[in-house]
Amino acid sequence: MIDKGRDAEAPRSALLDVLGRKRAQRRPVWFMRQAGRYLPEYRAVREKAGSFLDLCYNPDLAAEVTLQPLRRYDLDAAILFADILVVPHAMGLSLHFAEGEGPILTTVRSMAEVEALKPVAGTHEVIQVCRTVRLTRDALSSHLALIGFCGAPWTVASYMVAGGSSDRVMAKIAAYQRQPWFCALIDRLVNESIDYLAAQADAGAQAVQIFDSWAGDLTGTELEDFVLRPITQIVAGLKKRHPELPVIVFARGIGSAQRRAAAIPGANAIGLETEFDLSELPDGIVAQGNLDPVALLAGGEVVEAEVRRICGSIDPQRHIFNLGHGIRQGTDPAVVGAAVDAIRRCDG
Amino acid sequence: MIDKGRDAEAPRSALLDVLGRKRAQRRPVWFMRQAGRYLPEYRAVREKAGSFLDLCYNPDLAAEVTLQPLRRYDLDAAILFADILVVPHAMGLSLHFAEGEGPILTTVRSMAEVEALKPVAGTHEVIQVCRTVRLTRDALSSHLALIGFCGAPWTVASYMVAGGSSDRVMAKIAAYQRQPWFCALIDRLVNESIDYLAAQADAGAQAVQIFDSWAGDLTGTELEDFVLRPITQIVAGLKKRHPELPVIVFARGIGSAQRRAAAIPGANAIGLETEFDLSELPDGIVAQGNLDPVALLAGGEVVEAEVRRICGSIDPQRHIFNLGHGIRQGTDPAVVGAAVDAIRRCDG
Repeated sequence: MIDKGRDAEAPRSALLDVLGRKRAQRRPVWFMRQAGRYLPEYRAVREKAGSFLDLCYNPDLAAEVTLQPLRRYDLDAAILFADILVVPHAMGLSLHFAEGEGPILTTVRSMAEVEALKPVAGTHEVIQVCRTVRLTRDALSSHLALIGFCGAPWTVASYMVAGGSSDRVMAKIAAYQRQPWFCALIDRLVNESIDYLAAQADAGAQAVQIFDSWAGDLTGTELEDFVLRPITQIVAGLKKRHPELPVIVFARGIGSAQRRAAAIPGANAIGLETEFDLSELPDGIVAQGNLDPVALLAGGEVVEAEVRRICGSIDPQRHIFNLGHGIRQGTDPAVVGAAVDAIRRCDG
Repeated sequence: MIDKGRDAEAPRSALLDVLGRKRAQRRPVWFMRQAGRYLPEYRAVREKAGSFLDLCYNPDLAAEVTLQPLRRYDLDAAILFADILVVPHAMGLSLHFAEGEGPILTTVRSMAEVEALKPVAGTHEVIQVCRTVRLTRDALSSHLALIGFCGAPWTVASYMVAGGSSDRVMAKIAAYQRQPWFCALIDRLVNESIDYLAAQADAGAQAVQIFDSWAGDLTGTELEDFVLRPITQIVAGLKKRHPELPVIVFARGIGSAQRRAAAIPGANAIGLETEFDLSELPDGIVAQGNLDPVALLAGGEVVEAEVRRICGSIDPQRHIFNLGHGIRQGTDPAVVGAAVDAIRRCDG
């Protein structure tokens, strides 16, 4: 069991306290993609597992890589090791990850193809992910929160339409044209995401994050219809089943529209992309982010200065320290540790 | 000579009137990358020219492709056909464009390599571009403005550091670290850009645009130091030599910081990226943009609706209709014409 800092009173989770707007013991910290290729111990497990997807669906090994960063660093939360494409995979699309090339997925570009998609509940893929959640939760002390996640409909749909990560233009055209099959796909993803996140919560996830990595592709009514409305529906559907489950909405790259994301009913926090100017932060919200992963590559004084700038800009009771995007491959694990130390120094 | 709409009084340029805050006859329109691969007549000239760079440095053919879109569409301005990498090429770096792969450039990553860069004034590359400017200007009627351009230091430097378009992370790390060679490179690009734009103005360019395509990579003090300050210096240096020359600053992707770009002394207009929310437009400025090039791929009603939305959001006396990014290959030339017609209908 990982229980750094545990004491007799079973200390509370700083992450859950900030999300619940209770007094937190400290500014919580976790890093997007914190279990990943920059860690040698991850790469060792990955080799043992076989393919990337084999690792995602192997609960013992997936739980192990979920826990690895918490052995190294004084973090406040673990983020489930999985992939946003688990949902389309569980819906019946073929999926594989070509080494160094990103995902390759069956395309979905017609109403017939949308209608052929299966429900995710009870699929092997979702069962295995939920086993990972349970194993991880059992291994974590009470003050360390376990975060589940899914991709948001717009982002997941953009991969499904393109058949991988090659080009989001096809999805954007379908969105502009309000193609009935595309709208139906978004609606299907809303429903499946609710089931998927609810299953993660049933298995022990204590908070969830909805990742809309490509939200910044859209503006205006398209942002409303394909990013904000579907996320709003997911949050509402999920909270019907898990009223107390905190939800972090990460609509990456939407800039001034983060105000609208923050207003989603039931959203407990919003994630802020690296490019978000913290002086524009809406009042009264809980924000997560937004250290530049490239600052971790730059290292040294850059990390110190950026951590100081961010910690100085946001009240620790209203902030979850994180990156504005996932940790990059090639990041020095020692620099990640230095970042955590710098955060603790800033607030301490 | 291209003189659509010309009458006996030698009508004024709507583009120059809006930039000069004089009463314009109509909302001016031009499109970024309007001379390009989506036009069959461009592809015909391109085949005749040889390589892409051969075309850039062939004044007769480059002037011809600069003029082609004005033969097809009722536009208000021509944009010089050239490339933002003319400056590093003229500074002595080797450059070629691999078909379908983008530019390949000698890298610059040390003070010695910065110091070895040559001044652009009087180089073959700049002379040929200026010949294109002169030929184009001579072929245009007075109401059609000719726009010259350069890449901004941050964007051009990011290609020089990477040796092409592969990855801007190296430039970003150098910026964060305030590497002396990187700061010196930015300063060199400021000075060379002034000379290059002044030469274009001498040759007949009536307005210039500074393209900072990757400005959105940076925020905070990095945005200030490597995007806004260098552009401010270019505008100041250029206006010393050409006080009346209008300058359009296009710092793409900086969102709420467009307000800061608009405040650059001597900037006559700012370009707005597609992702910029027009409801956030600062008061009292002249803006250019921001139709999504993907809307042109979506075509039909999407173009109509987007044109109506943009024209309805900005006063035609304070707006230059344009895209938020360059026209995409594969765009139907008829849809570009339909967009121009839609703009005229909106205001008419």
